[in-house]
Amino acid sequence: MKVKAYGAHAGDLPLESLDITRRAPGAHDVQIDIAYCGVCHSDLHQVRSEWAGTLYPCVPGHEIVGRVTAAGAHVSNFKVGDLVGVGCIVDSCQHCDDCAEGLENYCDNMIGTYNFPTADAPGHTLGGYSQQIVVHERYVLHVRHPEAQLAAVAPLLCAGITTYSPLRHWNVGPGKKVGVVGIGGLGHMGIKIAHAMGAHVVAFTTSESKREDARALGADEVVVSRNAEEMQAHANSFDMILNTVAAPHSLDEFLSLLKRDGALTLVGAPATPHPSPEVFNLITKRRTLAGSMIGGIPETQEMLDFCAEHGIVADIELISANQINDAYERMLKSDVKYRFVIDNATLAA
Amino acid sequence: MKVKAYGAHAGDLPLESLDITRRAPGAHDVQIDIAYCGVCHSDLHQVRSEWAGTLYPCVPGHEIVGRVTAAGAHVSNFKVGDLVGVGCIVDSCQHCDDCAEGLENYCDNMIGTYNFPTADAPGHTLGGYSQQIVVHERYVLHVRHPEAQLAAVAPLLCAGITTYSPLRHWNVGPGKKVGVVGIGGLGHMGIKIAHAMGAHVVAFTTSESKREDARALGADEVVVSRNAEEMQAHANSFDMILNTVAAPHSLDEFLSLLKRDGALTLVGAPATPHPSPEVFNLITKRRTLAGSMIGGIPETQEMLDFCAEHGIVADIELISANQINDAYERMLKSDVKYRFVIDNATLAA
Repeated sequence: MKVKAYGAHAGDLPLESLDITRRAPGAHDVQIDIAYCGVCHSDLHQVRSEWAGTLYPCVPGHEIVGRVTAAGAHVSNFKVGDLVGVGCIVDSCQHCDDCAEGLENYCDNMIGTYNFPTADAPGHTLGGYSQQIVVHERYVLHVRHPEAQLAAVAPLLCAGITTYSPLRHWNVGPGKKVGVVGIGGLGHMGIKIAHAMGAHVVAFTTSESKREDARALGADEVVVSRNAEEMQAHANSFDMILNTVAAPHSLDEFLSLLKRDGALTLVGAPATPHPSPEVFNLITKRRTLAGSMIGGIPETQEMLDFCAEHGIVADIELISANQINDAYERMLKSDVKYRFVIDNATLAA
Repeated sequence: MKVKAYGAHAGDLPLESLDITRRAPGAHDVQIDIAYCGVCHSDLHQVRSEWAGTLYPCVPGHEIVGRVTAAGAHVSNFKVGDLVGVGCIVDSCQHCDDCAEGLENYCDNMIGTYNFPTADAPGHTLGGYSQQIVVHERYVLHVRHPEAQLAAVAPLLCAGITTYSPLRHWNVGPGKKVGVVGIGGLGHMGIKIAHAMGAHVVAFTTSESKREDARALGADEVVVSRNAEEMQAHANSFDMILNTVAAPHSLDEFLSLLKRDGALTLVGAPATPHPSPEVFNLITKRRTLAGSMIGGIPETQEMLDFCAEHGIVADIELISANQINDAYERMLKSDVKYRFVIDNATLAA
């Protein structure tokens, strides 16, 4: 089926209205009318060819929410009318150890929601800046939030799971002291989720101006990381620090705040490397520097249910599709609290 | 009591025969006639002032074995005549969380066997290149190997526990694939211990010439890390890699060999930093880069008992005290298989 989308024909061209084709739903597929799609920094990197291998036309978007309009004969878990979400993953091998454990995000043959190979036209996946998407039911999630919150649920599909997964993996909960570095699209979700998990949450920011915002999001304490004295007061005290900042910066400042066996987990990959961390900071307290990428499908459902139960959604600014190029410019200046979400109804215009 | 020792008066002077004083044993102390002392690379760094803060006279040595000659009134665990060992730690606060968990090695107030503050003359601790040492019983270990192996047991007190502790912490055992990078004092112990733990052990070396040696030590496979093709064959396959190499080198080559959730654990701190690792290599498989430092006292005893049970000792070259300066030069050229051990009887000469 032909549907409207927003995308680009080259890295140096703006996004514009496009017509794309979606496959007819197969036996295991769910066809979804997309209501809203969140705008992730990855979208910008990919569509502007800042990351290698961008395939054009490029239609970004992997924070997708909407309603089921058709379901294949073998689909057991979804029916027409269900509120659903689709995140960063639309396919995987389904038989490796990672897939067997529900960690499709680590499958070597994971197919991302855009810019990955597919049998469908035009030969690579096209994302959520579009009216409709067709996805194998394994990669579709139930949304149990009230429908009125649907736009603000969209960012949970990437920003939510990318922070939830490492917080769960590193056992964040009551009695644990957790840091969240960076208060942006990912970080603001990390603060909300870690707070709801019952941890003592410390937000780290470089801007004095974000102190009150971070508290409002659920941080028990806020540390301005440029203030060495404030940092030093937290030395050797964190069980885990979730670092959402992709810009190159010193990791040692944060490693030295971890207690024995603490983990500094990175969820953003810098374009140029961080300064090399001091091995001494790892050895002396058996600390770990780790990474984490999105999350698996079962834990994405778990995250959505957790957020529904705790009333957690993203803080968003709703835009129409034709505002996307301006939104990218504002995102580059961190001029958004904290996530742009496209109203996909505006694609029809 | 006045005893003979070997040490240096300055970083640019050779080690020479010295007279030092040991305290009379207190109620909780064990007095030990030192039979042998292993020669660790740390000894050289400290005595030559390559590490900051060396206090002179400096008597190195923290791989100590010998026999108990006196025990204080409250000593319950040792008696005169026992074969014992002392490693890198001779005191700690005894009341922090680390000490309570038997991880005195991570206590913020750990007192090392040499170059740490003490009430004893001359105000800093003096190590095992000496005829005798007096140590609080908490930091003394039972040696259950046959006495004929005593010299080769000495290196277990640092090289043994420094490799055993992270191998245990990262759950090395049957069904696990473990790498050991570097075949020297630490690495040769890591191979022996990981093999005895039942893991599939792959040794990494830069020298083709060490291939047979590594197999003889217990490696199931040996990879010459300069051979990119050989390395690539092991991509995404290791549960853990123990990296004993302190010289700066690319960590990415080894990170990329870890499977999901695998750990690359460093036990050597380079004088200048390693090249900064690719964050991408951490994120894509939720890998961790970690550090580990020596081990706690209870696990040091566990390691000694494990090694006694499995017939594990170090491969050593026995030297007399007056050969120590030459031994240091040879150690710098890796011209030893794999640890020098001083015969402390030669201190009397």
